[in-house]
Amino acid sequence: MSNEKPQIGVIGMAVMGKNLALNIESRGYKVAIFNRTGAKTEKVVKDHADKQLVPSYKIEDFVASLETPRRIIMMVKAGKPTDAVIDELLPLLDKGDVLIDGGNTNFNDTMARNARLDKSGINFIGMGVSGGELGALQGPSLMPGGQKEAYDLVAPILEKISAKAPQDGAPCVTYIGPNGAGHYVKMVHNGIEYGDEELIDESYNIMRNVAGLSVDEMADIFTDWNKGELSSYLIEITADILSRKDDLGADKTKPIVDMILDRGNNKGTGKWSSEDALNVQVPQSVITEAVYARYISMMKNERVAASKQLAGPTADVKLPAKEELVEKIRQALYFSKIMSYAQGFEQLRFASEHYGWDLKFGELAQIWRAGCIIRAQFLQNITDAFDKKPDLNNLLMDDYFTDIAAKYQQSTREVLSLAIQAGVPVPSFSAALSYYDSYRAEVLPANLLQAQRDYFGAHTYERTDREGLFHYSWYEEQ
Amino acid sequence: MSNEKPQIGVIGMAVMGKNLALNIESRGYKVAIFNRTGAKTEKVVKDHADKQLVPSYKIEDFVASLETPRRIIMMVKAGKPTDAVIDELLPLLDKGDVLIDGGNTNFNDTMARNARLDKSGINFIGMGVSGGELGALQGPSLMPGGQKEAYDLVAPILEKISAKAPQDGAPCVTYIGPNGAGHYVKMVHNGIEYGDEELIDESYNIMRNVAGLSVDEMADIFTDWNKGELSSYLIEITADILSRKDDLGADKTKPIVDMILDRGNNKGTGKWSSEDALNVQVPQSVITEAVYARYISMMKNERVAASKQLAGPTADVKLPAKEELVEKIRQALYFSKIMSYAQGFEQLRFASEHYGWDLKFGELAQIWRAGCIIRAQFLQNITDAFDKKPDLNNLLMDDYFTDIAAKYQQSTREVLSLAIQAGVPVPSFSAALSYYDSYRAEVLPANLLQAQRDYFGAHTYERTDREGLFHYSWYEEQ
Repeated sequence: MSNEKPQIGVIGMAVMGKNLALNIESRGYKVAIFNRTGAKTEKVVKDHADKQLVPSYKIEDFVASLETPRRIIMMVKAGKPTDAVIDELLPLLDKGDVLIDGGNTNFNDTMARNARLDKSGINFIGMGVSGGELGALQGPSLMPGGQKEAYDLVAPILEKISAKAPQDGAPCVTYIGPNGAGHYVKMVHNGIEYGDEELIDESYNIMRNVAGLSVDEMADIFTDWNKGELSSYLIEITADILSRKDDLGADKTKPIVDMILDRGNNKGTGKWSSEDALNVQVPQSVITEAVYARYISMMKNERVAASKQLAGPTADVKLPAKEELVEKIRQALYFSKIMSYAQGFEQLRFASEHYGWDLKFGELAQIWRAGCIIRAQFLQNITDAFDKKPDLNNLLMDDYFTDIAAKYQQSTREVLSLAIQAGVPVPSFSAALSYYDSYRAEVLPANLLQAQRDYFGAHTYERTDREGLFHYSWYEEQ
Repeated sequence: MSNEKPQIGVIGMAVMGKNLALNIESRGYKVAIFNRTGAKTEKVVKDHADKQLVPSYKIEDFVASLETPRRIIMMVKAGKPTDAVIDELLPLLDKGDVLIDGGNTNFNDTMARNARLDKSGINFIGMGVSGGELGALQGPSLMPGGQKEAYDLVAPILEKISAKAPQDGAPCVTYIGPNGAGHYVKMVHNGIEYGDEELIDESYNIMRNVAGLSVDEMADIFTDWNKGELSSYLIEITADILSRKDDLGADKTKPIVDMILDRGNNKGTGKWSSEDALNVQVPQSVITEAVYARYISMMKNERVAASKQLAGPTADVKLPAKEELVEKIRQALYFSKIMSYAQGFEQLRFASEHYGWDLKFGELAQIWRAGCIIRAQFLQNITDAFDKKPDLNNLLMDDYFTDIAAKYQQSTREVLSLAIQAGVPVPSFSAALSYYDSYRAEVLPANLLQAQRDYFGAHTYERTDREGLFHYSWYEEQ
C-alpha cells in the first residue's frame, strides 16, 4: 500500500457497508474502514488481507486517517444509530467535509440532518442505495441528495462504483437534488417496486386461479414475458422462482412457492411513499393498494376464518382460450405497470414542487436502468419521454405510453372483469384501470361531491361558467 | 341571571364556538364566553341579549368568571392558534381544571398536549365535534378523549347538548378513551365520510354515464333509496341536491350539479386517516381511494388535455334493463359501504391496540347514529354486531353483514364489470370488492411476494408446513 491517505472511508461493517467498501476498493481506491465493534473490522481486514483497506478502531483515528476534505459514507442502521454516529463525528470534522448517509433513512430525517449540519459547514448527503448486498458489492444504483458542491467532491468515486446501464454504459448515479431529495427518490423507487411486485403477484394469481395454469406453465410464461417489453429483473426472478422446487419438505418435486406462507412482510419504505403521496396530494393508488395487499396478507388467521364464512361468486365465468387469455394478462400487466410508473413520476413531480428540489425526471429513470430492483428495459422509454419533453406532466401523455395504453386497455378491462367474476382479488390492477379512466375523464363526479360539501359544511363550490367561489342556499325552499 | 358563576366557558366565538355556547345555554346553563377579538364577543352578546351568556374581554377575567374546577371548551383554529390559547391559559388554571379542545385537531397533537398538560395536573380533553354549524347549535355527535375523571366532570353537560339517537333517544356522546382517542375516532369518522361520499358519487357516475339516466331520474332514485337500508343523511341530501336547479346561471331550469365544477376539495382529515391506516398497518383502501379521487379531480386541466388524447373502451357494453341495473347499483353501493365500514372499524381496532386506548367499538357506532354527517340507519346494525360480540374482529364476520355481502356480492361484480367495460372510473367500488375477495381468500399470492423478497434481499420466508424463518439458496443451481 502507498503512504497516501485514503480519499474515502466507510463506517459500518455490516454486510452493506463491507460490500460497498470492497466495491470502492476494487476500483483502485484505498478505503478507511471503521465499525463500532472492532471485531467486525478485524474480520473484514483478515478476510480481505490483499485489499487496500485501512482499519481504525477508534473513530478519532478513522477521521484522522482520511485525506481532507474528508469523504465518509455511513452504512449504519437508520434512525437513532445514525444520529449517534453523527454526534460522535461532528466535533472531529471540519468545514467542507462530506458526510454521506447511505442507510435506509426516511427523507424527513435527512432533511432535518442536512439543515442541522449545514450550520456547522459540514456537507451532508443522504444517498439511496438500491440493489441489495450484491448490488453494493458489484454496482448499485445510487441516489445522492445534498449540497451540489459536496456531490462534486464524491462524484468520481460514486460513478466508478455504481452499476452501468446495459443500453449505453452510463453510470447509475446522478446528483438528485438538495437535502432529502436522494432518500425521497429512493423511497419512491421502493414504492414502485412494491407496485411491480404486487402486479406480478396478481397476474400469477389470475393465471393460477382464473386460468387454472400450473406453476410449471407459469414459469415458462414468465420466461417468455421476460423476452419482450416486460423484460426486467423482477419478471426474470419470478420465472426462476416458479421453476424452483422445495429444498426442505418431504416432497422435493413440489414447487417451492407452494411451501411458502402467504404472509407478505414489509420494511416500511413502501408505506412511507404512500404516506407522502397523501401528503403532497397526488393519487398514487397502485402502490398504496400494493402496501395494503401486504397488510391484508398478514391477517392470515382472520382470512382463514373468513374463507369459511364469506360467500364467493355464484355465476360461471366464460374464459377465452388459454393462449389468448395469457396474452391478455400480459397486456394487462404492462398496462398496469405503466399506470404505476405514471403515478410514481407524478408523485416525484409534485414532491419536487412541494419541497423545492428541481428533480430531473428523465435522469431518475436513467439511473434505475441497472443496479436496482426495478431495473427494466422500459425505463429507457421513460428516459426517452422526458428527453423529448422535460416538463412532461404525466407519462401517459408521451406518444409511446399513449399508444401502449390505447392498445392494451381493452385487454385490461377483460382480464379485470374475469377476475372480478371469478372472485380473485385484483386491488392494484383495479386501481391502475380506475386511475387511467379517471385521468382521461374530462368530467368526474366531484361536482356532486362539491355540492355535498357545500350542503353540509358550507364549504362553497366553483362553477363551470364563471370564476369564483359560490354557496347555494340549500336550506331555503325553492 | 343568578349570581352563580358559570359552570362552563367557551373560548372562540367563530360560528362553531358561538353555536356550541348557545346550545349549552339552551340546556339551562350559564355560559362564560371569550374571544381574542372582543368585538366578536360583543356582537354575540348583543345578538343574544336574552341568553345567559357571561362575556369577558380579558382571558384572566374569563378564567376568574368560572366555577372551579373550571370547564373550558376551546373552539379555535387547530394548530398554532390552539397552542397559543393553551399557553395563555396555563398560568391561570389550577390542578383539576378541565380544558377541552373541540377543534379539528390532529390526534398526534392532542396526544402531545395531553401529555404536556398532564404534568401540570390540568386535565386535557381532545373532543371531536361532528355535525357542522347546525349540529353545534342543535346537537352534535361528540367524541371526547382524555382523562376519564375529567370526562366525568363534563359528562352531564355533554350529554345534554349532544344529538339524541332516533332509535332510543340515547345521547350521541360517550367517553372514547385516553389522550388522542377522541380526535382519532373523529378522524376515522371523517375518513368514513369521504368513503361514503365517493361511493355515492361513483354510483351517480355509473347511473349517469353507464345507465344513461337523467339528473331528475337520479333524484327520484336516491329519494327511493333513502327509504330502505341505505337510509342516511348523505343519501338524503344527495336526493335533495339532484332535485335543485341552478340559482345563478342563464338557464334556471338546469340542475345545479351541472353547473358545479368537478374539482373536489378537501380539508385534510380524510388524508390523516389514510396516513394512520398506513402507519398502524391496516388495509383501508376504500377511504384511501376516496382521498385519491379528490386529488385526481383537482387535476382538472391535466384531465381535460388527457381526455383528448387517451383512448377509451372499444367494445359495446350490454346493459340489463334499467330498473334491474338501478337495483344492482343500489346493492353494489350498500355492499361497498359495508366494506368501507369494515375497514374503518378494523382501523379503530388496530389503532386501539397500537395506542393502548381500549376503544368500545359498539359505542362508537352508537354515537354516530345522530348529529354527525355519516348518521345512518345501518349504524344500528354495527352497534348490534358489537353488542353480540364485543371482540368481533371484522364486521363482515357478523351474521347480518355476512348475509348482506353474500346477497349483494354478485350484483357488485356485475356493476363493476359494466363500469369497467364502459370506461367509467370506479376506484372505491373496486377497492371494496378487492378487499372482500382478499379478506375471504384463504391463500393470497403473497407466497410469491415472499419468494421475491427472499430472492433479491434475503429477507427470509415462512413455510406452510413448519414454524420458523427460512432462506432459499436462490443463487445456487439445483
